[in-house]
Amino acid sequence: MSHQFPPHVVLCDVSPRDGLQNECKPISTTDKISLVQDLIDAGMPRIEVTSFVSPKAIPQMADAQEVMQGLTRRSGAELVVLVPNQKGAERALACQPDELNLVMSVTESHSKANLRMTPQESFERLQEVVVTTRDRVRLNVSLSCSFGCPFEGDVPAEQVLHWVRAFSELGVTGVSLCDTTGMAFPSQVRELVGRVQKLSQKSRITLHFHNSRGLGLTNVFEGLRAGVTHYDACTGGIGGCPYAPGASGNACMEDIVHAMHCEGIETGIDLDRLLKVSKDLGNLLEHPLSGQVVYAGPRSKTYALDQAKSQ
Amino acid sequence: MSHQFPPHVVLCDVSPRDGLQNECKPISTTDKISLVQDLIDAGMPRIEVTSFVSPKAIPQMADAQEVMQGLTRRSGAELVVLVPNQKGAERALACQPDELNLVMSVTESHSKANLRMTPQESFERLQEVVVTTRDRVRLNVSLSCSFGCPFEGDVPAEQVLHWVRAFSELGVTGVSLCDTTGMAFPSQVRELVGRVQKLSQKSRITLHFHNSRGLGLTNVFEGLRAGVTHYDACTGGIGGCPYAPGASGNACMEDIVHAMHCEGIETGIDLDRLLKVSKDLGNLLEHPLSGQVVYAGPRSKTYALDQAKSQ
Repeated sequence: MSHQFPPHVVLCDVSPRDGLQNECKPISTTDKISLVQDLIDAGMPRIEVTSFVSPKAIPQMADAQEVMQGLTRRSGAELVVLVPNQKGAERALACQPDELNLVMSVTESHSKANLRMTPQESFERLQEVVVTTRDRVRLNVSLSCSFGCPFEGDVPAEQVLHWVRAFSELGVTGVSLCDTTGMAFPSQVRELVGRVQKLSQKSRITLHFHNSRGLGLTNVFEGLRAGVTHYDACTGGIGGCPYAPGASGNACMEDIVHAMHCEGIETGIDLDRLLKVSKDLGNLLEHPLSGQVVYAGPRSKTYALDQAKSQ
Repeated sequence: MSHQFPPHVVLCDVSPRDGLQNECKPISTTDKISLVQDLIDAGMPRIEVTSFVSPKAIPQMADAQEVMQGLTRRSGAELVVLVPNQKGAERALACQPDELNLVMSVTESHSKANLRMTPQESFERLQEVVVTTRDRVRLNVSLSCSFGCPFEGDVPAEQVLHWVRAFSELGVTGVSLCDTTGMAFPSQVRELVGRVQKLSQKSRITLHFHNSRGLGLTNVFEGLRAGVTHYDACTGGIGGCPYAPGASGNACMEDIVHAMHCEGIETGIDLDRLLKVSKDLGNLLEHPLSGQVVYAGPRSKTYALDQAKSQ
């Protein structure tokens, strides 16, 4: 039935980084290590573990090195770390990650608001990282606001393609198209993915959606139709956007895994264990998470008739 | 860009019926009339206003007649009412609805749990309604558990097609495939819709999804691809399933409207007014609703850069 979808997808759980980064409550190093370890044990093939940013900029990520060093690694679980600059890259490399994720924003306003520099300045800084690290580690670049900017609105596809091209010329063929504030919609996903695929057939495209407007999972399905196999998401749908209080965060990992399994698409992930991780994460963060399957259970869950009578 | 989707969809807001029916808090007749009136004023083309069930069975719907009679009707806003049997149909017809929605479940266990009779007994009861009313009013039949049953699990498509055929032979060509407990997934939607379309090309198919496992909007998009133009949903995503405490309810109307507008699909609905209805409904019900756009705003909403700095 699912002939139009890829038979297998590679999901990357970004909740330890993109998720926790948006939480006000400080999370202990031990709890972070437990979260990542539980994700590894649930069979998560990729995890964005932490970010080697300035501790002053993002205090929640100050223990990046301790988290990386506290993990018991397992083959089949790739550990990715985010780095913003050369200094971060050197700190990161000491911890032997499987991949560095570089990040920049494709719009002037978002770049200035978040990183206090223009996209061009940001690119130059990352170019230095690429040149000095590309022989030592696999690299990926995440392009924020690829589907829209909270300040500028629509972002022309050409503006995204420009940076895809620039990194590709540096030898970085892993590119994440990030829907930073949940502005993507299906036909736009199809269009942009198609253009990136055409531009660079060597590129490994990752789609990173937020669910701010309820379209996270729908956009993942549009990606599947375009043949994209790599997706970022957060367990419990944590994360979010400071501009939309109350709105959902990242696309929810366990809801994606559940949907993939319904379609017969392999993820390598044990959904039951992942649901347990989500419940534990909800307890840790002390606020309701935005996933659905964690409440309803997988569709394979059936009830006895006498349970109905008592409802 | 949206050439594969229909240019126009007809959405039916079922929150006054399917939604409120699942609320514990009794809602006053005045508040119900306001809700329906606000939906009419927002341009909602169809509204399932109420249910002419036994007040003993569902006290929340005891004022069905008063609600219908309290409305200021407007051409372009069709009012649908649910009827379970002949007695309800006669009470309903006195209020001059545009359409009667008959409902039965396609599985033995769900039918017995919810209606205390078998699907066959249910059909015979509805057959009586059809024969006595089909010359007086437009009829639709809603088939519960078309995509799965909380007691029996998977439901063979043939079991659904059997009842589609039976009603079609009685002259009822409006059929709603209801995902009563949120078990539908995209390839299943495609398969079942395709088979119903093949069975009866005259049928007007309505898809009625719940978001219990986060797939509501994704399934709507699968319906669009199959050419389906009619969808049920609830403002604020209210409603739900007693078997999954904490799980989402019906697919969220305003999130669907927002997504359709992103795709350039016409709904005739004023999204800003609908978002206001959703906010008012949240205040009325005194619990958080499950829609997303009501928090994040439409994707066209942009922020000034100085708003970013204060975040």
